[in-house]
Amino acid sequence: MGKGRLEAFSDGVIAILITIMVLELKVPHDTTLAALGPLWGVFLSYVLSFVYLGIYWNNHHHMLHTVRHVTGAILWANLHLLFWLSLVPFVTAWMGENHFAALPTAVYGVVLLLAAMSYWILQRCIIRAQGPGSLLQRAVQGDWKGNVSPLLYVVGIGLSFVSPLAAGLVYALVAVIWLVPDRRIERVLHEG
Amino acid sequence: MGKGRLEAFSDGVIAILITIMVLELKVPHDTTLAALGPLWGVFLSYVLSFVYLGIYWNNHHHMLHTVRHVTGAILWANLHLLFWLSLVPFVTAWMGENHFAALPTAVYGVVLLLAAMSYWILQRCIIRAQGPGSLLQRAVQGDWKGNVSPLLYVVGIGLSFVSPLAAGLVYALVAVIWLVPDRRIERVLHEG
Amino acid sequence: MGKGRLEAFSDGVIAILITIMVLELKVPHDTTLAALGPLWGVFLSYVLSFVYLGIYWNNHHHMLHTVRHVTGAILWANLHLLFWLSLVPFVTAWMGENHFAALPTAVYGVVLLLAAMSYWILQRCIIRAQGPGSLLQRAVQGDWKGNVSPLLYVVGIGLSFVSPLAAGLVYALVAVIWLVPDRRIERVLHEG
Amino acid sequence: MGKGRLEAFSDGVIAILITIMVLELKVPHDTTLAALGPLWGVFLSYVLSFVYLGIYWNNHHHMLHTVRHVTGAILWANLHLLFWLSLVPFVTAWMGENHFAALPTAVYGVVLLLAAMSYWILQRCIIRAQGPGSLLQRAVQGDWKGNVSPLLYVVGIGLSFVSPLAAGLVYALVAVIWLVPDRRIERVLHEG
Repeated sequence: MGKGRLEAFSDGVIAILITIMVLELKVPHDTTLAALGPLWGVFLSYVLSFVYLGIYWNNHHHMLHTVRHVTGAILWANLHLLFWLSLVPFVTAWMGENHFAALPTAVYGVVLLLAAMSYWILQRCIIRAQGPGSLLQRAVQGDWKGNVSPLLYVVGIGLSFVSPLAAGLVYALVAVIWLVPDRRIERVLHEG
Repeated sequence: MGKGRLEAFSDGVIAILITIMVLELKVPHDTTLAALGPLWGVFLSYVLSFVYLGIYWNNHHHMLHTVRHVTGAILWANLHLLFWLSLVPFVTAWMGENHFAALPTAVYGVVLLLAAMSYWILQRCIIRAQGPGSLLQRAVQGDWKGNVSPLLYVVGIGLSFVSPLAAGLVYALVAVIWLVPDRRIERVLHEG
Repeated sequence: MGKGRLEAFSDGVIAILITIMVLELKVPHDTTLAALGPLWGVFLSYVLSFVYLGIYWNNHHHMLHTVRHVTGAILWANLHLLFWLSLVPFVTAWMGENHFAALPTAVYGVVLLLAAMSYWILQRCIIRAQGPGSLLQRAVQGDWKGNVSPLLYVVGIGLSFVSPLAAGLVYALVAVIWLVPDRRIERVLHEG
Repeated sequence: MGKGRLEAFSDGVIAILITIMVLELKVPHDTTLAALGPLWGVFLSYVLSFVYLGIYWNNHHHMLHTVRHVTGAILWANLHLLFWLSLVPFVTAWMGENHFAALPTAVYGVVLLLAAMSYWILQRCIIRAQGPGSLLQRAVQGDWKGNVSPLLYVVGIGLSFVSPLAAGLVYALVAVIWLVPDRRIERVLHEG
């Protein structure tokens, strides 16, 4: 079974998610610069989520490169990942419209954490399907990014109730860590 | 005539349907945990419909694997299926926002039933186009899932007026039955 | 220059158009059957437009099969067609929410007419790009459907101000005429 | 690493952006011609933005033709371009609903300018990845359109505060300049 439709479907869902978030930038009825003021929260959270979805699309893209055969487990693990990503526009808007209030900022982190966990599950499913000598297994060896991100999300969730600003900075930090594309997969693919 | 665009178009429509449902999760203006409370109905129905659309996409994916030539009948049977699926976000929101009230829960089942029937029609069109010795025909022989689902939908529709909770559980049961990908098609494709 | 992306982009736009129309089916706050009553206009117009967009996608699919090289003129004629199709959700909702009032029903016909004209222009651009002995030219010879549709749209637009119901029936008639896929292109492709 | 998914994802995002803009054409509750009157601003700005997104899709399509290998820099430069394009529906609606008031018209130009700059950055990333003798480098030599557009955007932004109408005409002029597809890339590709 090919992976073409899995990629196409995932691309479609992520493309829609990254785009409908902009619908939360409600058009102000006033035409002054002041009318744009209250939008800063929504705009900032939009930028953060845009980068996050871009990172997921990017890494998904790389990871799928190592896949030959799509199993039922991979299909469902992928849908599971898309489910948590589909909640990103909701938590983005909730956090943004309330200018990074404590609870919405924490819930934003919870969704990021669950998305990260579902990504990890998808990774395990692919590695298991590839069997011993798995290309992906070798590529993600010593995956410090993957290990440190959940910890930082937990830190961010906790910080939300102390200083939402600090929590936001932690989420942004994780994004920056991931912005560099995962060269290990490229390298291992080259060698293989 | 190739099937590439049929798959791409169906993927696009299902990807959009699965995603715009999340727009019904209206962002609360309050930032307390209590503000999320009234959303449980919409969230639960969203999860259920997400799984259903995932199942349809998954099975559609498998079924199309057996198709070589797309006939006019297949094209229109496919659009007919997409039509009923396109009503899923509407009935999901109606059922969810009203916390599984009787009528919306019944109408949700009716749309599931009509989607199942249109899927069955699409299956018949493909089998007919494949002629005698149809790969798909062999794959769906003894299709107990396909036979039992409409019955369960009818049971769910009836139960909605007695206990919407029970109806919801029946719908969830059908989803669970289908969660296992259809290995028959894979097996028959392997043999063929 | 390949036609893959032209098809993918057109598929994407039509898939989105056919799907966002369902957002106009506003979820009623009541849970009685009576609450669904006022939706009949929107539902009927949704069905009509769904069929129309399905027909355009279907015929577009067939027509593009004859294309090898995409010229700049074809690209822009295609975007021009997508522009008029993009207005379909707007006029569908306006007509549906007002239960087929005179002016919205006429404007619906005007958009159908402009879409038909832009489809015809796209057809001419493809034929011109194919030069003498054009496959598409031969395929659309004696295209009575293409000739009769604009006339029927004009009749429908006029009828809107006398009997919107009759106008709606004329629009539905054109849809029925087109529901049969265009076998000429398939036949000519087979011969060629 | 292939470019198929990059194209598919970009196509998806641009197709969604070009389509959701039409959601800003709010369906009037009245059925008179007068009810359509207040929509002229939104409609005009919709047409302008539709053409702009069409141009970006078209040129993106051409530029990607010269790409063989997608690097991390290209991936992120592409997402950066999509980010600014994703703001087009917002500024289109703000400008349109306020009938081309000064500030929204200026901000519309700012987003066009930033999109143009991110397109230029993407172009540089591709040229750099292609190394010496870059196909794209040769294709864009003497790119007067690319050089003159930012200047015209700046002129338009300034004019917004004097005469928004004149600013709108300048934006339309840039669109007209770009409507002709970029034959240089086609020519260079032919020679190469």
